[in-house]
Amino acid sequence: MGQQFGQLDGFRADASGPRVSGHRGARGALPENTIEGFAFCQKIGIASIEFDVVMTKDRVPVVVHNHTLDGALARDAEGLWLPDPGPRVAEMTLAEVRACNVGMANRGTEYGRRFSDQAVLPHAQAPTLDDVLTFAAKPENASLSLLLELKTDPDAPDLAQERAEMVATVVAQVRAAGLVDRTVMHSFDWGILDVARAQAPEMPTSYLSYLPKGLPGEDTDRTVMPSWEEVPASMPKAVVEAGGQMWCPHFLDVTPEGVAEAHALGLVVGTWTVNSVKEINRMIDCGVDSIVTDYPGRVQDCLLRRAAS
Amino acid sequence: MGQQFGQLDGFRADASGPRVSGHRGARGALPENTIEGFAFCQKIGIASIEFDVVMTKDRVPVVVHNHTLDGALARDAEGLWLPDPGPRVAEMTLAEVRACNVGMANRGTEYGRRFSDQAVLPHAQAPTLDDVLTFAAKPENASLSLLLELKTDPDAPDLAQERAEMVATVVAQVRAAGLVDRTVMHSFDWGILDVARAQAPEMPTSYLSYLPKGLPGEDTDRTVMPSWEEVPASMPKAVVEAGGQMWCPHFLDVTPEGVAEAHALGLVVGTWTVNSVKEINRMIDCGVDSIVTDYPGRVQDCLLRRAAS
Repeated sequence: MGQQFGQLDGFRADASGPRVSGHRGARGALPENTIEGFAFCQKIGIASIEFDVVMTKDRVPVVVHNHTLDGALARDAEGLWLPDPGPRVAEMTLAEVRACNVGMANRGTEYGRRFSDQAVLPHAQAPTLDDVLTFAAKPENASLSLLLELKTDPDAPDLAQERAEMVATVVAQVRAAGLVDRTVMHSFDWGILDVARAQAPEMPTSYLSYLPKGLPGEDTDRTVMPSWEEVPASMPKAVVEAGGQMWCPHFLDVTPEGVAEAHALGLVVGTWTVNSVKEINRMIDCGVDSIVTDYPGRVQDCLLRRAAS
Repeated sequence: MGQQFGQLDGFRADASGPRVSGHRGARGALPENTIEGFAFCQKIGIASIEFDVVMTKDRVPVVVHNHTLDGALARDAEGLWLPDPGPRVAEMTLAEVRACNVGMANRGTEYGRRFSDQAVLPHAQAPTLDDVLTFAAKPENASLSLLLELKTDPDAPDLAQERAEMVATVVAQVRAAGLVDRTVMHSFDWGILDVARAQAPEMPTSYLSYLPKGLPGEDTDRTVMPSWEEVPASMPKAVVEAGGQMWCPHFLDVTPEGVAEAHALGLVVGTWTVNSVKEINRMIDCGVDSIVTDYPGRVQDCLLRRAAS
């Protein structure tokens, strides 16, 4: 398999089963992409956090899922919900992003009604990537691996330049924080992962995929993705050919055969976003390495029940 | 009404509805009676934490719910589950209690299967009361009120002495921590609340009750309770006659009429342990002041949905 990446240890199943990865922190318990959510993941001892990086107008990487800062989860300095969809992060300065409060989901929106146990953070700003890296670099957080999703702006006027600049900024921050050995570069945009590998060959790359059959319950923003003539017959082979070490299919696309094929090719297999007890158990049975979930406690519970029975 | 107790402000409903009180911390999200659970409550901005105090053999108040340290939630230093029921806390030294790990529920028990989203704390000791008070006294936790449940040992050879000693120790610690003005003394044992009021008249008293019709889903340990000839026709009147300022009925015993009667008598009304969306909404409709819940995020969500609709 060529180069071995120690960063993948935090994403590879062991005798106790799959690793747990906190999706945008622990969105089932706390608002997404907040330091408090990431800290919750550390407290409960799971292996990794997954989070999303988008560039602001002043070219600061911030940890926000959508390319717009939406009224489903963000209020302005006066406490009023932003429009939904809201302004493009690429057209907001960091100061404008930081003026918003992302500590509560808006129950007047479909998004806000999806996570019915999600608590409130009275005051929470969207963290910068640097904030998350500073958090992760603290000694008490040394056990956390980072699944850093690069969200390439689909409206960038020059995609190649956008990718190169974004990767350069992100990689510089990861290196400066001393977190190269715990970070995996992760994206739907297979093209930006080429750039990431070229600029930072010491970090492994993780390839997100989903087959075009709709994503019930997902809120994936408009995303830069490969423009295949047709979807590859074997997604694991396509990931290996692209140069990846980790494959992250949507859980509806996961089969035991697909996982076995990926393992035979030397890939680590993560899957997202797995929230129901039924699908969590199916993913364990399929033999995936990592389960990315909004409910890390629920995945721990499923694993513990199996161990206890 | 005589004396006004500022401590009750953290338990009294306001225009936004009832206050939220974290039952044993936030048991739906994190193991019960742990500092991490209490810290979660602070992060999400709820008004109060509820917790249980039991005395060890060496007369240290520890924050443990049952009078036994049970294999449903405690492992020994070797990682083996304790028996279930386990040893009596009153016959364990603090060191023996502290040698146990209470950071995970045992999924081989009924208790351990009840909270299916409860995450794991890899290493958690039962806190002493002093640990909890030290936590609460930190400036960042100044918004939290404390609902301190006194768990009188039902097997104490001399109940009067047991009550007097327990109250003396607990009150001394609350005073030393400077937390008299945020603490409410709370018990099923109405007799110990007499003692509490006599020793610490500056703290209000909260009277737990439930009518003898069984407690589905509750795991209340054998408890010292009043030995009425018959259950009072009006529990609010009984609480007032006993000298209390707060009444905490089980949610199945709550009616709009009972709450209105209690309010007319000047009582603050809290109710426990309210976990289902249906019952949370019923409690809000009944006009209770505080909702004690294992799922504080769920109660926040119910309140926010009502405000958004």
